[in-house]
Amino acid sequence: MANLATAVASLVETKKYATLRDILSTMNAADIAVLFDDLEKPLIPLLFRLLPKELAAETFVEMETDQQQMLIKGLSDSELKEVVDELYIDDAVDIVEEMPANVVKRILMQADPDTRKMINELLQYPEDSAGSIMTTEFVELRPHLTVEDAIKAIRRTGVDKETINICYVTRADRTLYGFITIRRLILAQPDTLIGDLADTNVLYCSTMDDQETVAQMLHKYDLIALPVVDGEKRLVGIVTIDDAIDVLQDEVTEDIEKMAAMTPSDKPYLKTSNFSLFLHRIPWLAALMLAATFTELIINYYTRRLEMFGEIAGAMLLACIPMLMGTGGNSGSQASVTVIRGLSLNEITFADTLRVIWKEFRVSLLCGAALAVVNFGKMLLMNVLVYHYEGAAYHAYILAAVSICLAILSTVFVAKLIGCTLPILAKRIGFDPAVMAGPFITTIVDVTTLLLLFGLAQLVLTHIRF
Amino acid sequence: MANLATAVASLVETKKYATLRDILSTMNAADIAVLFDDLEKPLIPLLFRLLPKELAAETFVEMETDQQQMLIKGLSDSELKEVVDELYIDDAVDIVEEMPANVVKRILMQADPDTRKMINELLQYPEDSAGSIMTTEFVELRPHLTVEDAIKAIRRTGVDKETINICYVTRADRTLYGFITIRRLILAQPDTLIGDLADTNVLYCSTMDDQETVAQMLHKYDLIALPVVDGEKRLVGIVTIDDAIDVLQDEVTEDIEKMAAMTPSDKPYLKTSNFSLFLHRIPWLAALMLAATFTELIINYYTRRLEMFGEIAGAMLLACIPMLMGTGGNSGSQASVTVIRGLSLNEITFADTLRVIWKEFRVSLLCGAALAVVNFGKMLLMNVLVYHYEGAAYHAYILAAVSICLAILSTVFVAKLIGCTLPILAKRIGFDPAVMAGPFITTIVDVTTLLLLFGLAQLVLTHIRF
Repeated sequence: MANLATAVASLVETKKYATLRDILSTMNAADIAVLFDDLEKPLIPLLFRLLPKELAAETFVEMETDQQQMLIKGLSDSELKEVVDELYIDDAVDIVEEMPANVVKRILMQADPDTRKMINELLQYPEDSAGSIMTTEFVELRPHLTVEDAIKAIRRTGVDKETINICYVTRADRTLYGFITIRRLILAQPDTLIGDLADTNVLYCSTMDDQETVAQMLHKYDLIALPVVDGEKRLVGIVTIDDAIDVLQDEVTEDIEKMAAMTPSDKPYLKTSNFSLFLHRIPWLAALMLAATFTELIINYYTRRLEMFGEIAGAMLLACIPMLMGTGGNSGSQASVTVIRGLSLNEITFADTLRVIWKEFRVSLLCGAALAVVNFGKMLLMNVLVYHYEGAAYHAYILAAVSICLAILSTVFVAKLIGCTLPILAKRIGFDPAVMAGPFITTIVDVTTLLLLFGLAQLVLTHIRF
Repeated sequence: MANLATAVASLVETKKYATLRDILSTMNAADIAVLFDDLEKPLIPLLFRLLPKELAAETFVEMETDQQQMLIKGLSDSELKEVVDELYIDDAVDIVEEMPANVVKRILMQADPDTRKMINELLQYPEDSAGSIMTTEFVELRPHLTVEDAIKAIRRTGVDKETINICYVTRADRTLYGFITIRRLILAQPDTLIGDLADTNVLYCSTMDDQETVAQMLHKYDLIALPVVDGEKRLVGIVTIDDAIDVLQDEVTEDIEKMAAMTPSDKPYLKTSNFSLFLHRIPWLAALMLAATFTELIINYYTRRLEMFGEIAGAMLLACIPMLMGTGGNSGSQASVTVIRGLSLNEITFADTLRVIWKEFRVSLLCGAALAVVNFGKMLLMNVLVYHYEGAAYHAYILAAVSICLAILSTVFVAKLIGCTLPILAKRIGFDPAVMAGPFITTIVDVTTLLLLFGLAQLVLTHIRF
């Protein structure tokens, strides 16, 4: 890509505008936006003017917010008007939402009155609602039309519509009656009535529905578009599959960020300022660091009473803490991440809680037992290779190893049960399950692990004698 | 959903088949598949027979593999033939891929010879290739046709095609010439030539391309379908957006599973056997547990030489280990997960390595410094609330606190740099970046953290005297 940018820059320098126009017009909007990102800022308005009208608008949509702002500054009012007129309404709204007030004002002034009205209406919907991602440009047909008339009507008005692959049939009061795919329309006899041909078994959502739910619906039912109705069941817009994919991808990124103890950001990484990255990361880091005070107090307490375990066992108990916490943390994340992903794909619901717990119960015993055995083997080997204990020291070593293996078994058990239960409960009480993953559960598991380790060691080492 | 299942079961018991047919035929395939999952096994073939032909095939596609197998057993050969005839080729291939050999044989025997040939051809493509997810049912037009002829041709043959929203134009040797949307076709003058109307600037992929790359292309360029060509550039199939979304979602699940130290599984959680869950989780758990041997040796070494730090500082150093490792692990995951997600969304490439490192360098200093200050404040407060050290003990405590805060700063620094670099390097040398996330990086960070902690403490505590 960098090579293309260099080539383009040198073509600009030598004023080969015809060649540039030829290159750019065979490219896709998404690629041109990436190219612009690699170029010196002053070149962008110049190249943008070389683009055919439609491609210019598509490219504008694909550009990052800061680039869009720069470009708008460089365009004349009439040039800006041309771009705004070509934009789909939902894209225009997305762009306007990100811009500072003075730029928004300029954009709205250039839009024709109908477009301005539609943009303003869409801006009213809450962020993350179906209303905020829908487009108001769709093909609407009435039941009493014939197929021939409908196709004529689409020919007349369809050019500006975002998708004509699915047409929506509404009654006189604009309530939703059904839908008809363009495919069905074309394959039908010309004199069939739309009302007879339309599929009235139509899925729809409401303007106030959550955008993630709506995107999941499009995914689940393999739809290309989903109609959106208002409080009076009137058809007001459609959500198209391309916007749904964006929502799904963004929600996944958000989930992943939350699982890794960050507050989500919707900007691409390289575009985010360092201070803003810092702000997204520090709250969880600080909170989890302070939460570790509990583990600090527990270890401090036992370190000062280490002689009750004996010198050898005491050192071993302290030395195994990172291993034990790591194992507990990993076991817990495995369960929680699986459950969180299951929840967000709707494979798991609250009704499945007991099934999930029963499943993790058995899996945790399998994992815990296997790890305990492996660790015991390792500790026997470590004595041969490293420690070389004999006699009473060897007995103390074996008892400590037994305590540690019991601690592994119980830690894995507890971690998996907490890990699978917390996300489901969180979702039930309206919290975000993803926040419950990794770090949060790890903190709870860390404390439990330490108490189990020292408790079990006390039990084994002070009650069993060879 | 459970209530619907109960209602349906009691309708079956009272033999209200007409009512059942009415209920089922207003439902969507995906919902019927969920309903079947909640019902007693013997009811399923009975209800399946009540479904209209097309809905039956759609429902069959949505069902889980084990349910499909059960159902096939319950169907007669002629009933099975009806279902197979209704399936889209790519769905049929997906189903056949999951079935045991004897069931595959029965399905192929019922398919008509053309279908059988197409299924067999698609089965040849490697798993995860574009060929394996494409469908061979698409609309193909020739450049010399007029729009009117083309629409007639579509009317004649289009019923069986998975999507007619985009038609592909091929030359006489079947190489790809361009594409034309149904929308453009309808809006065009009837006597225009397809060759003149088609957009020849057409994106395509090859049968052997990776399915994830192909799905990303559909997403990036907002496409509804992408043509697939063979080694001779002949058009052999198309990948549709619904299959691309499935691929994207599966790949994300896989990434998340790898980040949480599991080997990926493509079965839904509740359908996976406990033993198989165990097998997917135990390798990483065991590997990471054994890798923690390094931390064990380091701590064991210093525990036996604790007197060199003095009693108070020694206990504090041991007690802060979980906090320090947690902070290092979390800092590292934040960086690695951000970078991994950026890599899989193509927001970050290898060329950005230095920019990423420079960014994380500054962010890590901000985070590290903030955490060190917060922790120092906390330790001052802890002395007031819990420890009450005075005089020489207080001096030792403060020196230990300084060592620990320096360790935090350097751990965050190292963790973030390792966290951001490893995934990029992994991708560069052809490894999966997701495997490099959380647990793997955490293990490296754990060892570094301990060495930093004890090293810094030795420096501060043995060289600075009040």
